[in-house]
Amino acid sequence: MPERTEIASLGEFGLIEHLTRDNETRNAGTLLSVGDDAAVIDHFGRQTVITTDLLLEGIHFDLSYTPLKHLGYKAVAVNLSDLCAMMAVPTQITVSIGISNRFSVEALEELYSGIYAACERYQVDLIGGDTSSSLRGLVISVTALGEVAPDQFVTRAGAQVNDLICVSGDLGAAYLGLQILEREKKIYLEHPDLQPELETHTYCIGRQLKPEPRTDIVKFLQENSIVPTSMIDVSDGLSSELLHLCRRSAVGCVVHDDKLPIHAEARAAADELHLSAVTAALSGGEDYELLFTVAQSDYERIIKNPGIAVVGYVTEADKGALLQTKAGPVHKLQAQGWNAFQ
Amino acid sequence: MPERTEIASLGEFGLIEHLTRDNETRNAGTLLSVGDDAAVIDHFGRQTVITTDLLLEGIHFDLSYTPLKHLGYKAVAVNLSDLCAMMAVPTQITVSIGISNRFSVEALEELYSGIYAACERYQVDLIGGDTSSSLRGLVISVTALGEVAPDQFVTRAGAQVNDLICVSGDLGAAYLGLQILEREKKIYLEHPDLQPELETHTYCIGRQLKPEPRTDIVKFLQENSIVPTSMIDVSDGLSSELLHLCRRSAVGCVVHDDKLPIHAEARAAADELHLSAVTAALSGGEDYELLFTVAQSDYERIIKNPGIAVVGYVTEADKGALLQTKAGPVHKLQAQGWNAFQ
Repeated sequence: MPERTEIASLGEFGLIEHLTRDNETRNAGTLLSVGDDAAVIDHFGRQTVITTDLLLEGIHFDLSYTPLKHLGYKAVAVNLSDLCAMMAVPTQITVSIGISNRFSVEALEELYSGIYAACERYQVDLIGGDTSSSLRGLVISVTALGEVAPDQFVTRAGAQVNDLICVSGDLGAAYLGLQILEREKKIYLEHPDLQPELETHTYCIGRQLKPEPRTDIVKFLQENSIVPTSMIDVSDGLSSELLHLCRRSAVGCVVHDDKLPIHAEARAAADELHLSAVTAALSGGEDYELLFTVAQSDYERIIKNPGIAVVGYVTEADKGALLQTKAGPVHKLQAQGWNAFQ
Repeated sequence: MPERTEIASLGEFGLIEHLTRDNETRNAGTLLSVGDDAAVIDHFGRQTVITTDLLLEGIHFDLSYTPLKHLGYKAVAVNLSDLCAMMAVPTQITVSIGISNRFSVEALEELYSGIYAACERYQVDLIGGDTSSSLRGLVISVTALGEVAPDQFVTRAGAQVNDLICVSGDLGAAYLGLQILEREKKIYLEHPDLQPELETHTYCIGRQLKPEPRTDIVKFLQENSIVPTSMIDVSDGLSSELLHLCRRSAVGCVVHDDKLPIHAEARAAADELHLSAVTAALSGGEDYELLFTVAQSDYERIIKNPGIAVVGYVTEADKGALLQTKAGPVHKLQAQGWNAFQ
């Protein structure tokens, strides 16, 4: 009887590390491989950054409250966000879809209208893909390419002690938007005659259904000659991403709960749902904001942008990754982001 | 009531054309976009070729007779075959997988051992990907990148009247191998105590389970300064691919049935299954051989390679795409390759 190890025992990140532990690179042009937001390939003077994401119905999206156009847009946006996290400018995407005959051509047109809207908004070319039938469910696989000037890409591995920890936009709203959508779906299934109450939560729902990659932040950093020492995009929640940065950079960190950027509508939604807005910001995920570290000497230039918050600082590795609460107590940061295999 | 058009009414290729009919390119570096085996991006002196394929359990593979290691190998091989069809040299791949908890870590190790075996065999780097849970079934999405010297890529669109039509290797065996596997699965399900009869069909089964991209043919063509006027890889059957070449090149063609390269074991398997070996060669699919056209002046150089067969010639578009049988009658070539949506 062969051994059987459950995937859940490793978790998503453990599984990737396990399966790629002996991965070698053979081509001199492969500058950065598995283990960051994207890979980097050298092309004689420019560098190509490449990333890919797989979206599966029932796991990553629920079509009962996700319009297909938004889904197409989001499938592109989350990949462009990974390119932003490398400081790359998006240039091309490929899109593969697996579809059952449950979908009509008109439904696919909706999906593609969202894909094209994102391509237009971010000046990206759709250059190829694959279309296949599926037995059930919708499968969307997007690969995105971007460009970066030689060796100007930013990995997860360069954070230095005393660096400032910065985050763009605000956090937690996408998760709270999802909770609102799930609540209204449940009410609808129990009482199909009731109208959903979504109007008071347009910000949170918008953050869930139509995330935007922060190409504007990349541009701001470049224009102001700010080179982050490390960067990652916030897809699984701030805590999980900070722990990635700390582990890859071999550092610790302190984050202040009262510095976390949280939108007023996210606070209101959290109150209504009896959830903590800070917990949503730390562990919610799907914000697709940029989390990065900069040298203290960049402080004056960073705060010129009101869309960037300084939320903490980098410490020695042995201090651990800590959350300093305004109330006093200090907690260890924990990755409570979405774990796909549990 | 919104209109509902069934996907089957367009077919796979019609659907792709429909969804990408208004697709624009915005980046000057995008040299070749949707509509060929792969896309081409300019990178200041070199050109990057990119292709992607989505493999879904129950549609593209049946795990009851496909070893996971072979599946991993094949998922890479079919993408590299698309790069070969552009005359590109494969360099990197990304691999995304969606897996249910039905799979153990050991099962995924098997899958990845096949992926790594293909990477090693073809000197390709695995540079990234995405790992996700799925509700059911295994999803594999591979994107492959390759390199080509400036403007040395070969599309489907350049075939000229009087060019020779060439095909590498042999055709039909992969399809016949699949029929053998399906037959033995059926027998097994009805009589679990019977041993499968696979030994006499190792060639055909090998062609189905472990296709090899023809990087050697690309190398031969390059070393002998033969530049095909058009090229495509044979994934859906020779007829379907020839019709693609003819349509994109605005030409017709004549193919001779007695010139089609068919392996002795494929003929034997066809006899045993009461199928036509010629039909399997024309419509079977999954051979992953290269189909290409060359100028007549390249004839002497082409026939130096015993692994390349000249099967016909290019004609004016108004002559159509024809099959000349040795017995006399002439038939119109028809794409009877796998149609995903019927």
